[in-house]
Amino acid sequence: MQRAHVHSFSMAHPADVSALAAALAARRIDPRAIVGVIVKTEGNGLDNDWTRVMAFDALVRLLADHGVEASPQRMSIIVSGGCEGVTTPHMVVFECRDSPDAGAAGRRALAIGHAISEPMLPEQVGTMDHVASTRRAVERAMAQASLAPDEVEYVQVKAPWLSEVHQQAAQSRGVRLKTADAHASKPSTRAACALGVALALGEVEPARAVDAAINADPSLFTRRAAVTAGNDTLQNEVLVFGMSARWSGTARVAHACLDDLLDVGAIHDALRRVGLPVAGAQLASTQQQQVRAVLFKGDPARAGLLRGERQLMWHDSDVHALRHLRAVMSGVIGAATGTTRVFVSAGAEHQGPAGGGTFAVFADGSPGD
Amino acid sequence: MQRAHVHSFSMAHPADVSALAAALAARRIDPRAIVGVIVKTEGNGLDNDWTRVMAFDALVRLLADHGVEASPQRMSIIVSGGCEGVTTPHMVVFECRDSPDAGAAGRRALAIGHAISEPMLPEQVGTMDHVASTRRAVERAMAQASLAPDEVEYVQVKAPWLSEVHQQAAQSRGVRLKTADAHASKPSTRAACALGVALALGEVEPARAVDAAINADPSLFTRRAAVTAGNDTLQNEVLVFGMSARWSGTARVAHACLDDLLDVGAIHDALRRVGLPVAGAQLASTQQQQVRAVLFKGDPARAGLLRGERQLMWHDSDVHALRHLRAVMSGVIGAATGTTRVFVSAGAEHQGPAGGGTFAVFADGSPGD
Amino acid sequence: MQRAHVHSFSMAHPADVSALAAALAARRIDPRAIVGVIVKTEGNGLDNDWTRVMAFDALVRLLADHGVEASPQRMSIIVSGGCEGVTTPHMVVFECRDSPDAGAAGRRALAIGHAISEPMLPEQVGTMDHVASTRRAVERAMAQASLAPDEVEYVQVKAPWLSEVHQQAAQSRGVRLKTADAHASKPSTRAACALGVALALGEVEPARAVDAAINADPSLFTRRAAVTAGNDTLQNEVLVFGMSARWSGTARVAHACLDDLLDVGAIHDALRRVGLPVAGAQLASTQQQQVRAVLFKGDPARAGLLRGERQLMWHDSDVHALRHLRAVMSGVIGAATGTTRVFVSAGAEHQGPAGGGTFAVFADGSPGD
Amino acid sequence: MQRAHVHSFSMAHPADVSALAAALAARRIDPRAIVGVIVKTEGNGLDNDWTRVMAFDALVRLLADHGVEASPQRMSIIVSGGCEGVTTPHMVVFECRDSPDAGAAGRRALAIGHAISEPMLPEQVGTMDHVASTRRAVERAMAQASLAPDEVEYVQVKAPWLSEVHQQAAQSRGVRLKTADAHASKPSTRAACALGVALALGEVEPARAVDAAINADPSLFTRRAAVTAGNDTLQNEVLVFGMSARWSGTARVAHACLDDLLDVGAIHDALRRVGLPVAGAQLASTQQQQVRAVLFKGDPARAGLLRGERQLMWHDSDVHALRHLRAVMSGVIGAATGTTRVFVSAGAEHQGPAGGGTFAVFADGSPGD
Repeated sequence: MQRAHVHSFSMAHPADVSALAAALAARRIDPRAIVGVIVKTEGNGLDNDWTRVMAFDALVRLLADHGVEASPQRMSIIVSGGCEGVTTPHMVVFECRDSPDAGAAGRRALAIGHAISEPMLPEQVGTMDHVASTRRAVERAMAQASLAPDEVEYVQVKAPWLSEVHQQAAQSRGVRLKTADAHASKPSTRAACALGVALALGEVEPARAVDAAINADPSLFTRRAAVTAGNDTLQNEVLVFGMSARWSGTARVAHACLDDLLDVGAIHDALRRVGLPVAGAQLASTQQQQVRAVLFKGDPARAGLLRGERQLMWHDSDVHALRHLRAVMSGVIGAATGTTRVFVSAGAEHQGPAGGGTFAVFADGSPGD
Repeated sequence: MQRAHVHSFSMAHPADVSALAAALAARRIDPRAIVGVIVKTEGNGLDNDWTRVMAFDALVRLLADHGVEASPQRMSIIVSGGCEGVTTPHMVVFECRDSPDAGAAGRRALAIGHAISEPMLPEQVGTMDHVASTRRAVERAMAQASLAPDEVEYVQVKAPWLSEVHQQAAQSRGVRLKTADAHASKPSTRAACALGVALALGEVEPARAVDAAINADPSLFTRRAAVTAGNDTLQNEVLVFGMSARWSGTARVAHACLDDLLDVGAIHDALRRVGLPVAGAQLASTQQQQVRAVLFKGDPARAGLLRGERQLMWHDSDVHALRHLRAVMSGVIGAATGTTRVFVSAGAEHQGPAGGGTFAVFADGSPGD
Repeated sequence: MQRAHVHSFSMAHPADVSALAAALAARRIDPRAIVGVIVKTEGNGLDNDWTRVMAFDALVRLLADHGVEASPQRMSIIVSGGCEGVTTPHMVVFECRDSPDAGAAGRRALAIGHAISEPMLPEQVGTMDHVASTRRAVERAMAQASLAPDEVEYVQVKAPWLSEVHQQAAQSRGVRLKTADAHASKPSTRAACALGVALALGEVEPARAVDAAINADPSLFTRRAAVTAGNDTLQNEVLVFGMSARWSGTARVAHACLDDLLDVGAIHDALRRVGLPVAGAQLASTQQQQVRAVLFKGDPARAGLLRGERQLMWHDSDVHALRHLRAVMSGVIGAATGTTRVFVSAGAEHQGPAGGGTFAVFADGSPGD
Repeated sequence: MQRAHVHSFSMAHPADVSALAAALAARRIDPRAIVGVIVKTEGNGLDNDWTRVMAFDALVRLLADHGVEASPQRMSIIVSGGCEGVTTPHMVVFECRDSPDAGAAGRRALAIGHAISEPMLPEQVGTMDHVASTRRAVERAMAQASLAPDEVEYVQVKAPWLSEVHQQAAQSRGVRLKTADAHASKPSTRAACALGVALALGEVEPARAVDAAINADPSLFTRRAAVTAGNDTLQNEVLVFGMSARWSGTARVAHACLDDLLDVGAIHDALRRVGLPVAGAQLASTQQQQVRAVLFKGDPARAGLLRGERQLMWHDSDVHALRHLRAVMSGVIGAATGTTRVFVSAGAEHQGPAGGGTFAVFADGSPGD
């Protein structure tokens, strides 16, 4: 049987991998067992956020020092900037180990699958080919973890984007891309990936997932995925998280789909399903100690309204809407969970309903890091 | 008997007083009964936020059109900018009317007292004279509303600041002020006012409230007040809110003191005390309709830690710490209450413990505006 | 004969019209002779800049107090925000008076024409109809001022934009607009106006000014115009400035077209042509006193290069590119002229070459305000 | 004889040392001859600018790869962020080689001296001890380069600052520091260094350089230095640049002292003195090719006025004053020189007059990099 572990480490600066280094040195983590790392760094989370590069490079160097090449084939490293509000810079490390433990009969535990798609051509990014490619990768990751679609709680995708290199390569081949510049490719690549997940999980009717709907029809969405754009290779990296009786251990995961940014009821539901029911206003401190990771993906409503009330996020020309979003969600999620290690990310095309988003919580009853 | 009413209106732009104008035109509000207006506008809430001026001027003009001079003697108009996160620009209007209603025996209702201090000299601002002046004004406002100190739930103070005019006047008189420039006078004027409230409410031992403690000893604080600096006259305007059996009506108020920015338990307590217990994760929609106003005053912890975790707010040179704070608290308070008409303000010297803040909620079971 | 006067007033705050008020009170300016006011206010110059509204409303109120309705038929009031860098908030007032002075034979003076186009339909905005409408308005303004195209130095256009009201009106009529939202209409409305000016001045071959070229072909541009979007009525307001022997007085104007943001040679040329040759590094102080207004319109090069060197303006997610642009051009123009009353505005579609811009300087040898 | 070389390389990203790497690989630069590197990176140039760390680390690694430890004893590496306006990220490398060339009689060339002070105690930072320590280091650097005080054109100092480590060390020793926190130590450390330079160069009367004047008396200033805070060791690193007949080669340097931010006349003077007189509005392109480095150090005037006109830089709560400053000076200096590789830095205590600053230009007639 396999057993999944989720570790969380806070970071004192963008390249701070010292806590992970200590865990590796103490053999609390096996570098060869790492299948994913999700990092929230302290930059602006926008175009010119170099803290992402610092964290990524530091991780790759640390793993190389431990004899592990951090290739996408082996693991997904997802680094996202923006610690607005009360967010603490931190990283979450996902580990899958072989376990002598047979598991308790009928008891389910966190299961993790990892897969990477075949390389795409630049002109496929953001198209139905891309949707299909992501779908197949999710299906492979589910198969790897022996997870059925309805056992999947959350899918994290690292999507390719059309960086300058790919833009120029396509131009030299005389090929027309779906988006004209690197930055503009992010929404459509995220959209295609999210629809791919939704198809793999059976959340969207295949007949409706057509080219014209990509990043255009907000009624199509997955309730259980987050997509981050930023892969320089034209591949889709997929981490699938579910609950399975075929995995052992004490780690757990549950997701929620928020109808809007204040849908804290959905967050409480996920906490309850992961074994951490909120008795009063917030998780008790003993419960908080079991929380290993909290992920949220969402966007401010484009229409500028929340429950009918005017919102200013998209109209603040000095502070980007997504910086507002990350700050406010650190408050909403922090209110429920009591933790500030909250991974909030924006760019939620087909991920949750418009103006809402998707949420996942990982917990473990055993002593953590 | 007197009866207090609390009205809330959203604003479509910084000078939008149309909803209040409609209420005045329909005689739902008596302009002569208004004792306070608290406005949250959509600017940056910092030095160069002109939306405050727009709102203030629009209010003064509207009231003048209805034959009422909006003098500090008659009412306090407190305008604060910063609708970060999910905050909706809005205004809260406090009205005190004579009521034929005798009140139900033993039933308490919202009571409001308003007072303004004698003018101070510039050199008194931020000193123990200032503390004493504010204390006397709070005592007068309590007396006016027939409120005992322990019946007071919240005090809102509009503090004077040493604008350029006062700086120059003092200089020409050869007088040395406690702070060297206009902007720097805000923390010390807020601090002096907050200590004045704390003394009036019996929250701080008089022997400890000495000159050296003003804006220096964070262990001294009121749990029931918010101070906003911005009064161009050298007076302290005070609004005292309490619950009294000597007032009639259905309006209610309750306060909370937050230990830190994620102390949502304190918020739930205040909601319960105002008659709106949170059954699940958030107020039910019928409860939300009773909420008339939500006020919060607090600051990010100077030490840059929240529950031991690193915070970035004070280290973001592109987005001011107070903009982060307002965004995150719109999320924390919105999570509990479900409303986006949240008045969050920073600059909380001696108002709540360091890194925490004070909170008040106003509710009314009768149909609102 | 007519005589033009150009007045410049600095502003102590966004609604500060006190200097103009004093000039009106002292009858140094005839309110009925005002044909244009160009204002630079201290907001962020972007979406949520309310200082523009404050200045506009204050001007309209002041003129109303002097019995003049500030209608677009009578005058163009152009308010633009953004005093980045060393820019001083200020306003420029253009006045055309009847003059008993016959003018010196052959001596040319500043001539000003003002015209407003017929109202357009929302669906015409940004189309060739819009181009033609602007062209006709420029021609009428030239005729009014008895200016031939080659006598025109600069044209300032206040372009309509498709605000929410027009968006909704069009939608209810089932009409498809050229741009999907209010904000996105600004580039295309500016582009259409600029091409209209270019045609009126004979700067662009009519055969090349086709619908597909609007905001798409940067090789088509006027060297002598600036367009500001923001007119809520669907009309094009035009101010034409030229040098004419048919006008009297001492006021002068000259334009320049900058090849890139550091093309200070073009600025020196314009200064020389307006009678203020730069002897050393900068205008001498006696020359500086003759400068009445300095206008610049330009954009950072989209390609992110200036003279082959990498530029960061478009890649700074915390400070908008146009705020960078205004700051840097206050330095470039201030270096040459020595003045900080510089009106820098961005959004220069078809106004100067890509990465460059257009410039105008107004001077007057007589004692100014 | 020694010969100084100045190299300039643009950077494609904050850790881009590829151009220097190529020069080292091609042996155009001798790594053992490098005495200073000055880098301008593309971050915000404020508290949370990590691009400085990226550049510094990349440089240190590159030099280590070439067998050179980048210790302060060997070289000063000064990295400053903020490419506002038209500034291009770039680095300047200073090299001192032994030269067989005897030099032309009487012909002066760029001379460079480098020195580092003895370590200070934390409590000395910002005091007269610090002033004296810097003075001695400057004197040693001058001696090393055989430069007399009046031959010195510019001094670049890398000053220590009281980072957290030093703050805590001092606290544990029970020692009181001159400033209470790390960030606040920067102005006083810069001030002490600048006064030290001024004394070494004979620019300030020793009797006036007293403790109470440090960062307090703006009438005391050097016209020929820039100080950057950021040295983690408590030492003062000094680079002295002068023109000397005892050095050979074609490299040259000249300084200027600007009276205010628009004092472009001073810049033209320095250009003329370095052999690049501005004939028209800007250096001709053949002259531009000789420019190797342009440095400016200055601050916006605290009083908020430039030539009597209101300035907004200090009143913009969304964009830091120093970001405005760097943008505007990239324009002023770019206007004169035509280059965008401009190193603008703020924090100019006792460096040039208040509201002005100091400037240096390096040129070389020989073919550059």
